[in-house]
Amino acid sequence: MKVPPGLSAKDFSDVVKQWTEIVGKEWIFTSDEDVEMYRDYYSPLWHEDNDPVPSAAVAPDGVEQIQAVLKVANEYKVPLWTISTGKNLGYGGSAPLLSGSAVLDLKRMNRVLEVNDKNHYALVEPGVSYFDLYRYIRQHNLKVWLDPPDPGWGSPVGNSLDRGGGYTPMRDHFDNHCGMEVVLANGEVIRTGMGALPGSKTWQQYKYGFGPYIDGMFSQSNFGVVTKMGFWLLPEPEAYLSGTVTVPKHDDIYKMVEVFAYLVDSSIVQATTLITSPLWYVRNDPELTGIREHGTTQDLDAYAARKGAAYWSVSLPFYGPAKVVAAQWEFAKEKFSAAIPGAKFLDGASYRFPLSDEQVAKMADTVPFGIPSLSIFSMIGKNIGHLGFSPIIPMTGEAVLESQRVFTQVYRDLGSPEGEAASFPVFSFFARAFVNIYLFPIEHDVEKNRKTREIYRRLIKESAARGWGEYRTHTTFMKDIAETYSFNNHSLLRFHEMIKDAVDPNGILSPGKSGIWPKRMRTAKA
Amino acid sequence: MKVPPGLSAKDFSDVVKQWTEIVGKEWIFTSDEDVEMYRDYYSPLWHEDNDPVPSAAVAPDGVEQIQAVLKVANEYKVPLWTISTGKNLGYGGSAPLLSGSAVLDLKRMNRVLEVNDKNHYALVEPGVSYFDLYRYIRQHNLKVWLDPPDPGWGSPVGNSLDRGGGYTPMRDHFDNHCGMEVVLANGEVIRTGMGALPGSKTWQQYKYGFGPYIDGMFSQSNFGVVTKMGFWLLPEPEAYLSGTVTVPKHDDIYKMVEVFAYLVDSSIVQATTLITSPLWYVRNDPELTGIREHGTTQDLDAYAARKGAAYWSVSLPFYGPAKVVAAQWEFAKEKFSAAIPGAKFLDGASYRFPLSDEQVAKMADTVPFGIPSLSIFSMIGKNIGHLGFSPIIPMTGEAVLESQRVFTQVYRDLGSPEGEAASFPVFSFFARAFVNIYLFPIEHDVEKNRKTREIYRRLIKESAARGWGEYRTHTTFMKDIAETYSFNNHSLLRFHEMIKDAVDPNGILSPGKSGIWPKRMRTAKA
Repeated sequence: MKVPPGLSAKDFSDVVKQWTEIVGKEWIFTSDEDVEMYRDYYSPLWHEDNDPVPSAAVAPDGVEQIQAVLKVANEYKVPLWTISTGKNLGYGGSAPLLSGSAVLDLKRMNRVLEVNDKNHYALVEPGVSYFDLYRYIRQHNLKVWLDPPDPGWGSPVGNSLDRGGGYTPMRDHFDNHCGMEVVLANGEVIRTGMGALPGSKTWQQYKYGFGPYIDGMFSQSNFGVVTKMGFWLLPEPEAYLSGTVTVPKHDDIYKMVEVFAYLVDSSIVQATTLITSPLWYVRNDPELTGIREHGTTQDLDAYAARKGAAYWSVSLPFYGPAKVVAAQWEFAKEKFSAAIPGAKFLDGASYRFPLSDEQVAKMADTVPFGIPSLSIFSMIGKNIGHLGFSPIIPMTGEAVLESQRVFTQVYRDLGSPEGEAASFPVFSFFARAFVNIYLFPIEHDVEKNRKTREIYRRLIKESAARGWGEYRTHTTFMKDIAETYSFNNHSLLRFHEMIKDAVDPNGILSPGKSGIWPKRMRTAKA
Repeated sequence: MKVPPGLSAKDFSDVVKQWTEIVGKEWIFTSDEDVEMYRDYYSPLWHEDNDPVPSAAVAPDGVEQIQAVLKVANEYKVPLWTISTGKNLGYGGSAPLLSGSAVLDLKRMNRVLEVNDKNHYALVEPGVSYFDLYRYIRQHNLKVWLDPPDPGWGSPVGNSLDRGGGYTPMRDHFDNHCGMEVVLANGEVIRTGMGALPGSKTWQQYKYGFGPYIDGMFSQSNFGVVTKMGFWLLPEPEAYLSGTVTVPKHDDIYKMVEVFAYLVDSSIVQATTLITSPLWYVRNDPELTGIREHGTTQDLDAYAARKGAAYWSVSLPFYGPAKVVAAQWEFAKEKFSAAIPGAKFLDGASYRFPLSDEQVAKMADTVPFGIPSLSIFSMIGKNIGHLGFSPIIPMTGEAVLESQRVFTQVYRDLGSPEGEAASFPVFSFFARAFVNIYLFPIEHDVEKNRKTREIYRRLIKESAARGWGEYRTHTTFMKDIAETYSFNNHSLLRFHEMIKDAVDPNGILSPGKSGIWPKRMRTAKA
């Protein structure tokens, strides 16, 4: 059995004994086989010495048990890595950042506490998955949508706290949460927003409460254990309509993104989409490779024209009343037409809700319609892990081109076989910026993973040098990314540390998360 | 000269001397005449012993001067009450909560640092007013709207930090901020969100950055001095359309609010409006008074029918492409018609933007069109102060009726001459809840003000007893309201205090704001 750093085997054995009394022996996991299940099967450090291994996992059921577990952890200074439910693939799985941490697994807290279809919200525990919540909504025949991320096995609480994104107008999951219950490191339970008012009638309807609005402190952080969280749901819309816009020339990207930003910032396009180029998917054509390396944008335009391909493409998703979405698409066409000669439009899918079971069965991807699935895995390939590099870039054509250029160059410089694969679409998971998502395959191949880490770290550096920062990352790179947010000699990180020391003086909660270490581990890690 | 609590006259004279060296003698205010200007002319404690009086005011120009001012304040433990610009009427004016505090006046920091009309944002200092920002946008001929609150002399920074509301789709001012620069009590400067990344290109485009999202901590709080803040602006819409819905019967409120909530939560209605009843404005009609006290809802319906009045009314504002807003209004009419027999519809104002100067000149109220004004004062009466009691209530018909009943009863119980004046519209300044706004006149009449305070405190109590909490208040009532957010023996307030002690150990910043006192004053005030 691995022992948490700083503890003797005897101490840890005492800890396990006490935790067992709290949660019952079936809810504490210390055998090698069990602990193995909590490791990250797709870790970029797989089978290397510094691949983190938990010492144990403990699964309390409810706030009182969490309080009791924390009391023991405080006494012995046991680092606890909190997880909710799901797999967290690409971000570290269930494994702690600090090897030897015990995993605080909240999967048993899986109650849907309330779903309201008049004011359109849900209140859930961290162990509830998107599938669970969807099932509850179906069973109760409620006319509301949740907004699932790609795989539906994850937790709305966990995903939102990590600031994940989905595809419907409720795509920004943290932004659409409303109200939390948090157990602090000292065992104190707080409710945020209106939840601090006993018998509150608006805990899930108004976010801020009175005084400081502290919810954000608990996202991507290690300041507390969130035990309940509210979410705004989308009332079932009447209809969905999508349409694709294509433009013919390389330099049309400037106007294309400008019109797109107008539509997004005006809430005309409210859901997630991506901007891409058909040309990016042309590989192994020596003519195109030659133009890319030595040609002009005119040469690229001519190449696209010869192949009958548009240069850029974006699909616009609209959700709402049938007549409204039709008018929104009509307006979008007018704006793009007025701005870009040669812009073309293709009507896409259109639906009326609710969907029939037959319609759902035929869909390649139900996620944009509020129905969680695992179909992402058939899209990106099975039995292989992926790591995402996700810088936030401005919603401008300039940034789209520059990011493609800079990141492609990194691949070339490092002689990656991926080469031009760096050309990936830019997504609009968040309101007013793009996120670039580069996926790296993770295999059980130490040498390949070493190369991936080298490229990843170089991308972080090149990105930061241009004023672009990542929004989220795998535990392996949290320190690297936190260090790029270094304004004024890392004053923000030092502020986070000041808070950490105040709210978790023994440094037990998720040490190292987002680059934040407790005082007693700080010097060693700095 | 009033002296801050705990300081000797000699100490404070040293402080003033040092501050004078920092900001220059024209930017420090200590004379009775000057200090009087910083008092709240419409204080509900006017001319009573506990009406707070500042000891001085100091107006630094820039971060370095603020740092130097704070250094002195830390050394001598001088409480500083931070203000931005504008009048802050109804919330305490420029006066500190704690008498003897010095006012840290940021009015000189009035630079518009950037306005971007491609990604639709602004970055401003706290001394910039809505008028200043509007003027800048006009002068540079930018196609973006700001979202002014009622009076335009206020500060976007200050208003957003106090979580004020406006009327356009960007109505939730705190929600539409993006990125801050904050000077902490120890003089350290942090930038939040993407601003922590040196040379960031997305500080005003993506809110969260990496790690904990801490911006909310600085709203309605005393944890730091915000020196820069970004805001999302609305791209100039193509058109505006409004339409009024009326329904005939008292009990129609249930379905009316249900449909309204569907429209709001679906982002079909995105801007602020209010639900009201024409009958509320009928005063001094003995027949109606009798029905109100002893009659049934059927009697009320019959009264309304006899008078040819609708029972309830709501105006729906739509902003966007002309065809989209027309379709939205069409859809709203369908939904209300299907739900409520006898629902009627009246087309309201419609505009195409930009407005001509002639159109603007003719408008009673330009605020809903992004043009700051002071016309609110001609609406609510001049030369009289107002205090707002603003509980957040659920967006349901039940809550509308119950709040009217409960609050009207408070007026009656306390024998207020206002009587039925408690019947005020419910506003939708925020996304998914209503806010009730009761205005109290404040006069220079000690006895009337005492009565107002009695009613106000009773309203807070009755409100909290039903699970409704206030979103914002005058300094006089901050403690009362903070105390209603008392879940688990005031654990949230104790968490705020824990943070306060960590980030401002000398307790110099705005003691008492939102009920948060620094340690050294806590026992005395608890």
